[in-house]
Order: sequence, then structure tokens, then C-alpha cells
Amino acid sequence: MAHVNENYLNLQGSYLFATIAHKVADYKKAHPDADIISLGIGDVTLPLAPAIIEAMHKAVDEMGQKETFRGYGPEQGYDFLRQAIIKGDYEPLGITIADDEVFVSDGAKSDVGNIQELFSEDNIIAITDPVYPVYLDSNVMGGRTGKAVDGIFEKVVYLPCSAENNFSPAFPKEHVDIVYLCCPNNPTGTVLSRKRLSEWIQYCKDNDAILMFDSAYESFISSQDTVHSIYELPDARQVAIEFRSFSKTAGFTGVRCAYTVVPKEVSAKTKDGKRQPLNPLWNRRQCTKFNGVPYITQRAAEAVYTPEGRKQTRENIAYYKENARIIREGLESIGLTVYGGVDAPYIWLQTPKGKTSWDMFDILLEQANIVSTPGSGFGPCGEGYLRLTSFGSRENTIRAVERIKKLSF
Amino acid sequence: MAHVNENYLNLQGSYLFATIAHKVADYKKAHPDADIISLGIGDVTLPLAPAIIEAMHKAVDEMGQKETFRGYGPEQGYDFLRQAIIKGDYEPLGITIADDEVFVSDGAKSDVGNIQELFSEDNIIAITDPVYPVYLDSNVMGGRTGKAVDGIFEKVVYLPCSAENNFSPAFPKEHVDIVYLCCPNNPTGTVLSRKRLSEWIQYCKDNDAILMFDSAYESFISSQDTVHSIYELPDARQVAIEFRSFSKTAGFTGVRCAYTVVPKEVSAKTKDGKRQPLNPLWNRRQCTKFNGVPYITQRAAEAVYTPEGRKQTRENIAYYKENARIIREGLESIGLTVYGGVDAPYIWLQTPKGKTSWDMFDILLEQANIVSTPGSGFGPCGEGYLRLTSFGSRENTIRAVERIKKLSF
Repeated sequence: MAHVNENYLNLQGSYLFATIAHKVADYKKAHPDADIISLGIGDVTLPLAPAIIEAMHKAVDEMGQKETFRGYGPEQGYDFLRQAIIKGDYEPLGITIADDEVFVSDGAKSDVGNIQELFSEDNIIAITDPVYPVYLDSNVMGGRTGKAVDGIFEKVVYLPCSAENNFSPAFPKEHVDIVYLCCPNNPTGTVLSRKRLSEWIQYCKDNDAILMFDSAYESFISSQDTVHSIYELPDARQVAIEFRSFSKTAGFTGVRCAYTVVPKEVSAKTKDGKRQPLNPLWNRRQCTKFNGVPYITQRAAEAVYTPEGRKQTRENIAYYKENARIIREGLESIGLTVYGGVDAPYIWLQTPKGKTSWDMFDILLEQANIVSTPGSGFGPCGEGYLRLTSFGSRENTIRAVERIKKLSF
Repeated sequence: MAHVNENYLNLQGSYLFATIAHKVADYKKAHPDADIISLGIGDVTLPLAPAIIEAMHKAVDEMGQKETFRGYGPEQGYDFLRQAIIKGDYEPLGITIADDEVFVSDGAKSDVGNIQELFSEDNIIAITDPVYPVYLDSNVMGGRTGKAVDGIFEKVVYLPCSAENNFSPAFPKEHVDIVYLCCPNNPTGTVLSRKRLSEWIQYCKDNDAILMFDSAYESFISSQDTVHSIYELPDARQVAIEFRSFSKTAGFTGVRCAYTVVPKEVSAKTKDGKRQPLNPLWNRRQCTKFNGVPYITQRAAEAVYTPEGRKQTRENIAYYKENARIIREGLESIGLTVYGGVDAPYIWLQTPKGKTSWDMFDILLEQANIVSTPGSGFGPCGEGYLRLTSFGSRENTIRAVERIKKLSF
């Protein structure tokens, strides 16, 4: 008699985006002429850069010719891409990463979701609140969280992040084994300082904990006082696994390419106290349950590192960042308090006068025909915030901000 | 203190292809002029069909234009592809599959590796011997196998397949919860009859077991007495999950696209005896740890179902199948006993006069300069067999067979 993994039954339903869609649909039905603008988009909207398109056409042609056709590739990614990543993303920062520490994948979501497999069920995980839900849900499925009571899992350590602590969480009071940090952060759009990240590394060393460092929004960083890679900081190689993605860097959300760095020094313990490096375990995981990223996709990712690719993708990022500035400064100009939006495509708006996230969502929808994302959907500490994104068109972004400016709160 | 998943430490090293590579390299070093032909290739070699190349170019262009750019797609695959699969692969067989029973993925390897997550650790799995190693290894990682003694896992039920039982395994004597069957089979190249597959479905119904039906080589089937889909058979929807791939159907080993069908009727039990359908669990798994297949790849897969795509990909399969016929009949003409090769790209050669798999491998390498794959590498019951593949060029296939014909055993 086959039995299910009952941990799956502990998963909480995710109704955030479904509820938003319903509310918007209802509003449209009641106001068919409403000119609705979405500042809730969590996906890139600009097309792929020409250098990338060119590389993909070339790779497609190669796949159509016997002499240049490629079948199965290395599960870890082709050497040409691993080299481009090391030379493009790490060497300029003075960081040495070996080829076999880079694992090319179909998405940071896959990797941050799958990495927990390397750990036993009794590890205690710490996540920030609010949080990108994959860290939590993948550990619920893996049996590390226990059951949820009122949406709070009994074995999970939550690290509250709000304006009160400048979105820089305190160290957990309880012992934890695995810490997930996302910097620049989704959903708050804020970053952690170099000093604080160094302290987190020290914390992980002191507690023999692993730091899962999700750096998917790295390309949006402007601030000097944060890191482009966790390995800029001393001793990070001993405790940190870094997740990077081409999704936001190069608009690859529909192309699917990312990579994860697992330094050879990072290890966890066996029950009899031996240290087991995680790099060979992740390699074995990928070789057993993954068959590599499409050749064409890897050539597309490689093109991101060419001079033209760099220039073109950075122009796209600059476009989104300018949208973020317009939103941020527009809202500040009418006395609203906003966070983020400098090093990330996300603006985290503090709702005025004690309004709930959903109150504010309704006001923007009904009074300005603007769709946003209630912060409470990302965790209890997101209550009282609203996430706005900079992925819309310039025109709509400007129009949306003008509409909000006319409201009184 | 982070602890590793010690189940990973129970994995057995896989030295088969590394050992082959070493032996071939050593031989080349000693005989630099040797004209070595590989009949060991487990990967397609013909380029992608023109209809697929055309579809990919078109999709690449769409990704380069703002109006047609696509970001995140549905985790389960675009409707256009799910519809093409249903219309192309199931309706002609008289099988009704709903859209939301089809899950498009980046590979059957990923899916057969990940599906075990849906089940609790105490399920007993049955695999054939010899076997495609992912079924086993993914369950080792998931903690369902116990430890290995002399390469045999204590909690796994092995189903021997050899000439003695016509490669059709007997039902397990012990109770099992999950059965993996690959038909057409890798590595033996043989198929199970409709009658026997019906009996397996009945077995699974009687034992409340799940049938994992890997049909990656379906497009090679010529025989009438097997199935193109397990759902051709009554009641299969109650117990079977089917894995299909474009890798061999359309030469997509480097393109990466597959799909898995999870009928809504298939369920497993919770500890308190309730039935839990697996379809929503797999959907949740994919939505949490996967972000969908690239848009371009899905358009490529869709093109496989166009009249031109069908014609062109079937020509490629016919090419490989003709190679298989040449190998099979050539070896039979000198009195060797071979299996498979009719409904699969694999020929399973019984080694003559009690030679071991590696003995025979050495003979072919040294006396005919031909690379093969020792059957013992796929499991103990593969001992005394050799796997030959039809993925080489026609010319090399003919030359290889002529060389073997000159040997005396």
C-alpha cells in the first residue's frame, strides 16, 4: 500500500496572487472601462537583448547541423558557460571560484528548492519574515518544519524584518542549522550591509550553520555598502552557498538559466561527527535528478557576458531602476514612507495611518485603478506594507505615480 | 550544527562509463592508429529536424520583440504544448487525458528522479535488474532503500530480467508499494506484452501499489503486442504514472523536454487510511521547485506534432531502427544470440560461451576496435550481456558489424 509523503499535507495554501486576481477581475466587471495599471508585476517585460537573440539563433542553427549538433551536455553546465560566469561575475570582484564549484541550472527557484535535500530532516531552518515562499515550502515538503498553527510552522525560526530593524534581522535566539538570506531582498527591495553580512558569516561559523545566500537580484545593486557576491566577505567559502540567476539580470524568466556556487569548503556533519563537504553531494544530486540546461540556453547565457550583452542587459536594468526611482520619489513626495527600490526592482511601501496591507491594496485599486501586492501575503511581518514593482513600462509607471499623488491618505 | 542527509552516503559509485572510457583510452594509447567505432553511444547523433529548427528560430525572434516576449510561463507547461501532446500522443490511441494531467518538464530523468518525493520513506520499491539507475539512486537519496551490501540494497525488491524469463519479470514475492517499469526497456531493448502489462496493472490494483511507467523509448515501437501508452490498458489510470520524453522521439537530449502524466485517479494513502490523489501533490511539487520549460523549447516540442515535424522525426527514428536491424541481423547471422533492437535503439547481446560482460567488451575492443557497454554495469542480472546501440552513423554501424562477423567466438 503506497503511502504519501504527509509533509506535503502540511503545506499552506498560497492564495495571495489568486485573491489579487479575483479582486481585480471583480473590479473590472463592475467598472469595465477602468484603465487598470499593474505595479504588481513580478516578471520582466522587456524583450531579450539583441546579443542574446543573436547567440540563440546561432545555437539553434548549430543544433540543425550534424557537425555541430549537441546531445546530452554536462549536468553541471558546459565549460564555456562556467568559465564565462567565473570570469564575468567573480574575477572582477577578486574572488576565486573553481569550475567545479559552479553548477548551471534551469533556475534559482529549482536550486533553492532542491538544495534542502542535502540535509537531514532534523535541521532547524531560519527564514526571514516576510520571505520568498520557496525556502519555506521546500522545507515543509522535506519534513523540517512540523505543522503550521495559524500559518506559523512550529519548528521554523522566523526572523522578523520591518522598518523597526531596518529590514536587517536579528540573530535567532534559538539554535538554527540553516539560514536563508535573500539580498537584495524579495519582497522588501532592501539590502543587508557588508558589516551585517560579515556578522552573519561569523554567526554561521560559530553555530556550524549553513548560509543559503540568494542573490537573484544582484544586478540591481547600486549601493556600495552591500555585496555582489557573498564570497567578497572573509570566510564565506566556509559556510555559504550562493544562488544566482539570469532571470532578472538578463530577462531570462522565460529562458530559464541560473547557477549555484557550492564552495568545496562548505560542509555539514554526519551523525558520527564527521564533516561531509556539500559540493560532491550537490554534484551527485544534479547528476542523478537533472540532465543539464539546454545548449541553446547556455549559449544565450554566455552572450550576457560579451561586451554587447553586458551593455544591452545593463540598459534594461537601468530602465527598471529608473522606474523604481520614479515610484520611490513620487511616493515620498506626498509624504509616504517607502523602502527598497534602490538595489532592487521592488519598492516596499509602508501603509499610512495604520492601514492594513489589504486596505491599502483596495484603496489603490478602487481610487487609482492600480494593482499592487499586499505585503502580508509574504508573511505576518509584511502586514502594513505593500510591494510595488518597477517592471512595468515607463509610461504606465509615470501615470500610476501621478494617480497615487492625487490621492489623500 | 547542520547535518547531511546520510542517505546520500549510501549511494554506490557509478564507475561503468568511467571504466569504459579508461579502457578505451588505454587501448588508444597502445594502438594510436586504431580506427575505433563506438556502439556504446547512449545519445542521439542526428541533428534536429528542420521543422523544429524553424519553430525555434521563430520563438527566438518572438523573445526579442516586446509585443511577443514571454517571461515566466506556467510551471506545468503552456496550453499549446499540453494540447499538442494530448491530441498527438493520446487521442489517436483513444485515450482521454485532461490538460491538467499533463506536466511538461525539462526531462524524464528529472521527473522519474523527483516523483519519489511524493511518497513517504517507508514505501518499498521494486526495480528490474538490469535497470536504468535513476529509479534506484533517487530512492537511495530519499531513504527508501537502506544500505547496500555488495551492491544490493537491503530494502529494495529486485525483479530479475534475463533470457530465462524473456525479460518479463515475475511479480515480486515480497510486498511492494511502488514498481518501476521501463518499456521499451533501457538497457535490454525489449518490451513487455499487452497481456503482461495488464497483469501488472492488476497486480498494482490488488496491492494498492503505484506503477511508474517509463515510456521514453515509445517512438521506437514496431511490435503490435505492446503499448504506446500504459493508458491503452483498462484501469491503468487508477495506478499508473507515465513518463514520456522528446529526447529520443525528436533528438531532444540537448534541448531538454519531456512530460509526465499523472491521472487524477492515481492515489496513495495517508497513515490514517485516507486516499490522497497524487496529481495535486505533483502539481504542488512542480510549482514550488520548478519554473517551467523555456518557451522556445516548448515551441520546439510543439513542432514535433506538425505534419512536417512528425514526418522528419520519424525519418530519424527509422534511420536508427535500420541501424538496429543491421546490428541485430548481422550478429544473428554468425550465430550470436541477441535481444531487443526491434522496439528500441538498444540491442542486448548474450555473450557466447559463458563469457562475462567485461570479457566480451575486451574482445570487441581489442579484436574489432568496437566500444560497447557491459551489461553487468546495469545490475547483476546484466552479467553475460552486452548493450549495443543504434545511434551511430549508418556507415560505422555497417563497418562495425562486418568486423564482428569476422571474429570467431
